[in-house]
Amino acid sequence: MTEQAIQAKKASRVLAALSTEVKNEALIHVADQLEAKYEAILKANEADLQKGREKGYDDAYMDRLSLSKNRVFSFAGGLRKVAGLPDPVGEVSSSWTLENGLDVEAVRVPLGVIGMIYEARPNVTVDAAGLALKSGNAVVLKGGSSALSSNKAIVNVIHEALDETAIPKEAVQFIESTDRSAVNELLTMKEHIDVIIPRGGGSLIKTVVENATVPVLETGVGNCHLYIDAEADVEKALAILVNAKTDRPAVCNALETAIIHQDWLNEHKDALIETLLTHNIAVHGDDTAVKTIPHAIPATEEDWANEYLSLDLAVKVVSGLDDAIDHINEYGTNHSEAIVTENKQTARTFMTQVDAAALYHNASTRFTDGEALGFGAEIGISTQKLHARGPVGLPSLTTIKYIMSGDGQVR
Amino acid sequence: MTEQAIQAKKASRVLAALSTEVKNEALIHVADQLEAKYEAILKANEADLQKGREKGYDDAYMDRLSLSKNRVFSFAGGLRKVAGLPDPVGEVSSSWTLENGLDVEAVRVPLGVIGMIYEARPNVTVDAAGLALKSGNAVVLKGGSSALSSNKAIVNVIHEALDETAIPKEAVQFIESTDRSAVNELLTMKEHIDVIIPRGGGSLIKTVVENATVPVLETGVGNCHLYIDAEADVEKALAILVNAKTDRPAVCNALETAIIHQDWLNEHKDALIETLLTHNIAVHGDDTAVKTIPHAIPATEEDWANEYLSLDLAVKVVSGLDDAIDHINEYGTNHSEAIVTENKQTARTFMTQVDAAALYHNASTRFTDGEALGFGAEIGISTQKLHARGPVGLPSLTTIKYIMSGDGQVR
Repeated sequence: MTEQAIQAKKASRVLAALSTEVKNEALIHVADQLEAKYEAILKANEADLQKGREKGYDDAYMDRLSLSKNRVFSFAGGLRKVAGLPDPVGEVSSSWTLENGLDVEAVRVPLGVIGMIYEARPNVTVDAAGLALKSGNAVVLKGGSSALSSNKAIVNVIHEALDETAIPKEAVQFIESTDRSAVNELLTMKEHIDVIIPRGGGSLIKTVVENATVPVLETGVGNCHLYIDAEADVEKALAILVNAKTDRPAVCNALETAIIHQDWLNEHKDALIETLLTHNIAVHGDDTAVKTIPHAIPATEEDWANEYLSLDLAVKVVSGLDDAIDHINEYGTNHSEAIVTENKQTARTFMTQVDAAALYHNASTRFTDGEALGFGAEIGISTQKLHARGPVGLPSLTTIKYIMSGDGQVR
Repeated sequence: MTEQAIQAKKASRVLAALSTEVKNEALIHVADQLEAKYEAILKANEADLQKGREKGYDDAYMDRLSLSKNRVFSFAGGLRKVAGLPDPVGEVSSSWTLENGLDVEAVRVPLGVIGMIYEARPNVTVDAAGLALKSGNAVVLKGGSSALSSNKAIVNVIHEALDETAIPKEAVQFIESTDRSAVNELLTMKEHIDVIIPRGGGSLIKTVVENATVPVLETGVGNCHLYIDAEADVEKALAILVNAKTDRPAVCNALETAIIHQDWLNEHKDALIETLLTHNIAVHGDDTAVKTIPHAIPATEEDWANEYLSLDLAVKVVSGLDDAIDHINEYGTNHSEAIVTENKQTARTFMTQVDAAALYHNASTRFTDGEALGFGAEIGISTQKLHARGPVGLPSLTTIKYIMSGDGQVR
């Protein structure tokens, strides 16, 4: 495995010097080949699905694992889109001249080697490779063992395709070992790996953060809140609640807890109850919520911290903005938080005091997504504050190099 | 200690909302009070020096530890300078409107709470507090035990001064415990601390990187190289070598290894030898260097990785640019690397292929410094690629918050 990381580092040096055109052509060729060879990928995927059925994985898990011709073509399409995005590498982000005549340039360069640790979805294999290569980085992929066969088939296609391009195929490394120690080894290869990006559930991310000595770009866990203020418009509030909770409950920008102002609840409880029932939203409420919403069951302490990823919703009733902000700052995961109110000052206070990557006034948390927000593709949603926050696009896969040109200057 | 971190987090929320003017006034008041109360600080410092003498610390260490009226006034002056720097907080770094009418703003906000772990120099207490407060962050300081008394006296003055300003004094926390476990506790307080910045020697930084679950901004270790190419101008080469090696040998941007092209050495060996002797530079050379430079002793494998921080210099002779680049990429610490050559293409190749924060063509590595490069003050030199690379100024102590304003938009 060290050998693979060393090869990746070597390849990253070649890759860093390639022009945008050459990288784009290579990505498009990989996309073409994924489409041309989709049957081999589906066959490999069938083996994973068979094992999954034997292990009795649930429907949602099997759905994340399963590929189809459409899905393969859709991630090939994703690669073509990445090829079309602007290349951050080589951009001079600032430059100046010191009094002594020394010229200073801050130039964007690739990070080097990205370690990607992820779970069931085989599409991450293609997405991560595409974004890494476009930004001039090599990538070491460690996918979940349940998708091993699919991932291997995909990486095979990528390697065969890269062999016909200027990008060395060693720039995409795939760790086949399903041993837990393989992950730990990857997490401590500071010499060869420049950043680790975990994508998956809370426990994967916790393992990575606790064991990595390589810098980590933490992504993903979203315990997102919607605060419905006393001055919230009822139609906006209910539309946003329904969209954020039910549009795609299993994703990280889905709503998990609604915090409702007591006055608003008193006035609009019938509409709220009807909406919740119509959309099959199960409610875990605090005392007041349980008294008000007939189908609510009592929330436990765990409910406030839970990322349900289902049609369950925790509901807390408050008497003011401060209580809402305190609750969010205590239980939130710094991902996406929303307020519905017609009062601009209340919204401003919420924006200032809530600590999260993405804050919404009168809009759904579902927009926290690289494509929806207009960043182009993303490799994940960062919930940390260093380096990248929110959707992680191509520029976040680069760093700065300061280049000083002089004529013998000394200090 | 958890209590101190919680207080810091609370204070950081107050601080984040303060205007630039209010923060600047507070910093200037702290500077005034440090000057007014310098005698108390010197008295406390005397206690540390006494203990240091008993422990038999070497001169360089004692020098880093010792304060004088001049030094106290100089770090008070540093605070006034930080007060004068532009405030990054609140800056809208970009904004756009989506097709659905949703307004998106990327706003700079403080990181929150900065954990600072450092060694002997008491000036770091003032520098770190000043930069943290100016950028709207609270700071938890853990200084070296040898400077405990000095640091406590400085923090006392800061607290008394802040009490007379709008900045809550809880925004500056000082960990008195000299217990090793206190450091480990700090490194894993992910709930309350947003970033750890270590400042000190290699072993401190290693401990931090290996044990932290809080994101780390790695700073400081500089095994810097100077490559003297076949086409190097002799005067520039020798002036840069002398400056980079001898101006301040104990700092991280000082030169540690010179890599010299065989042809240049053949032509200029007399001038080189005379320069090395004149400036008392001890040489640890490879075979060729030992044969050429009379006072050179043979270098061991350790020499190539050593950050001497003294007038010692490792010298390697190569037959071309590629060998020089390979050596630097193997032994360098991604800090500062220089080339002297009159050939621009050679310089360009060096800039592209060497992996470091700061690269110099015909100039001394000593310029890698926030002030020298025109960044204003700095909290350290980052040798990592994530978040900040090179001198870490005020903007690197902030993060982005995405603020979306809508009118009921859903996905």
